[in-house]
Amino acid sequence: MARRKKIYEGKAKILYEGPEPGTLVQYFKDDATAFNAEKKAVIEGKGVLNNRLSEFFMTGLSAVGIPTHFIRRLNMREQLIRQVEIIPLEVIVRNIAAGSMAKRLGMEEGTPLPRPIIEFSYKDDKLGDPMVPEEYIIAFGWASQQDLDDIVALALRVNDYMSGVMYGVNIRLVDFKIEIGRVWDGDFQRLVVADEISPDSCRLWDMETGDKLDKDVFRRDLGNLTDAYTEVARRLGVMPSNATHMPKPTLIN
Amino acid sequence: MARRKKIYEGKAKILYEGPEPGTLVQYFKDDATAFNAEKKAVIEGKGVLNNRLSEFFMTGLSAVGIPTHFIRRLNMREQLIRQVEIIPLEVIVRNIAAGSMAKRLGMEEGTPLPRPIIEFSYKDDKLGDPMVPEEYIIAFGWASQQDLDDIVALALRVNDYMSGVMYGVNIRLVDFKIEIGRVWDGDFQRLVVADEISPDSCRLWDMETGDKLDKDVFRRDLGNLTDAYTEVARRLGVMPSNATHMPKPTLIN
Ligand SMILES: Nc1ncnc2c1ncn2[C@@H]1O[C@H](COP(=O)(O)OP(=O)(O)O)[C@@H](O)[C@H]1O
Ligand SMILES: Nc1ncnc2c1ncn2[C@@H]1O[C@H](COP(=O)(O)OP(=O)(O)O)[C@@H](O)[C@H]1O
Ligand SMILES: [Mg+2]
Ligand SMILES: [Mg+2]
Repeated sequence: MARRKKIYEGKAKILYEGPEPGTLVQYFKDDATAFNAEKKAVIEGKGVLNNRLSEFFMTGLSAVGIPTHFIRRLNMREQLIRQVEIIPLEVIVRNIAAGSMAKRLGMEEGTPLPRPIIEFSYKDDKLGDPMVPEEYIIAFGWASQQDLDDIVALALRVNDYMSGVMYGVNIRLVDFKIEIGRVWDGDFQRLVVADEISPDSCRLWDMETGDKLDKDVFRRDLGNLTDAYTEVARRLGVMPSNATHMPKPTLIN
Repeated sequence: MARRKKIYEGKAKILYEGPEPGTLVQYFKDDATAFNAEKKAVIEGKGVLNNRLSEFFMTGLSAVGIPTHFIRRLNMREQLIRQVEIIPLEVIVRNIAAGSMAKRLGMEEGTPLPRPIIEFSYKDDKLGDPMVPEEYIIAFGWASQQDLDDIVALALRVNDYMSGVMYGVNIRLVDFKIEIGRVWDGDFQRLVVADEISPDSCRLWDMETGDKLDKDVFRRDLGNLTDAYTEVARRLGVMPSNATHMPKPTLIN
């Protein structure tokens, strides 16, 4: 394979120039980081799992008409995506209080929220991705009011869809983070779900046992992260082998 | 004077039952606190100055039709106010980056903002008055969307007015915090500016020298706090004596 130009190396992924203009190759590393990269590890197999799972979720979103950057998976660790202009925000949707919200408000983790709540962090590692009010976002021009309205609508749709996907395999979608990108059709801007959707970017709790099946396993040293992600993939029928997504076998009585 | 019932003692003020139903007496202490009360001191004369200055600003706001809780000053340290149902938010308006915003966004203090920016903290000492997105406020029912719209409009008017007051005496209104209360006319709710407006709750920079004339003098050990507040009162012609507000003498040529 010809040497490709590396565009960006982040904490969990590498972006390479894609085969066509306007495309990128997203490579999923095994690196895990938490607490603004103060805690680090290499978790063998994580990249393969996240590549698969992000493919699975993005494909599902597209199928219900929610636009994403995903084009197709290329191999075990890489997927072809549409190059977008990333809005420098982490868009966080919460159904149940956990993590920073529980801490900020002195709530017990696991408290159901009165309705899904959306919040934003400014994507800047040096600043530790600080939470920002919508006012900051608009005043500093990171997004317009119209963008924010569209982002909220998009995020709520993703929440509905992903909650449903997880519900189907007895997992509660506690919260998740997405990134949103702009793509241009001439002068006309569209917003699409970008980056990744995976157990790195969601909180997923087993509905029966409350077991965590997400990156908190790593953040809080609760066990083997690959096992947790494999369990999610297994329940969803996403094979962590080289095969494409395998539908769950239909039960025949 | 008959012993009054103490309703609440806060960090800077005490509330007593007022002489009429629906009123309170607000007593201004000399206590100064910062960093969620980790830093404390008694600053002689601060309470007297803030009582005067809050009277001065609230009276001015009323005069331009911005409703406040203020009824009248009673003595050196006390004012009669309308009892309100405090909305548990600190409503912060910023014109220039400083304090927590500058830190959060890695901006240099003193950077002018593209437009006034409003943010909210949840008023809870135990939690350190954490910043909260509007989403949290509405979802937890601390205020409705309609309330928030009204609060933003009110806060922007206060900003216009107070910026003007300060501009007139060569002081830049960098930012300030207000609290908003509900009063009921039968079933009809009105929102009013409550608590206090004083150099405890504003950032005030001398336009020429950049000298700080507000609580940062205490927070950052920059000098004598009473001197700074006295300077603000002096410029505004607010006498820290027992006399009521003295208009600035008219120059006669
Ligand atoms: N479709 C896309 N086009 C351009 N950039 C993208 C796209 N999807 C994701 N990105 C960006 O690529 C990077 C992914 O790598 P990651 O390791 O997550 O980085 P980071 O450490 O910055 O979060 C992120 O900065 C993300 O914003
Ligand atoms: N008009 C009012 N009616 C009822 N409560 C008020 C009114 N104005 C201010 N308050 C409340 O009175 C208290 C003032 O005391 P303060 O020392 O500032 O308290 P804190 O330490 O809680 O900030 C605050 O809790 C404030 O919300
Ligand atoms: Mg990332
Ligand atoms: Mg107070």
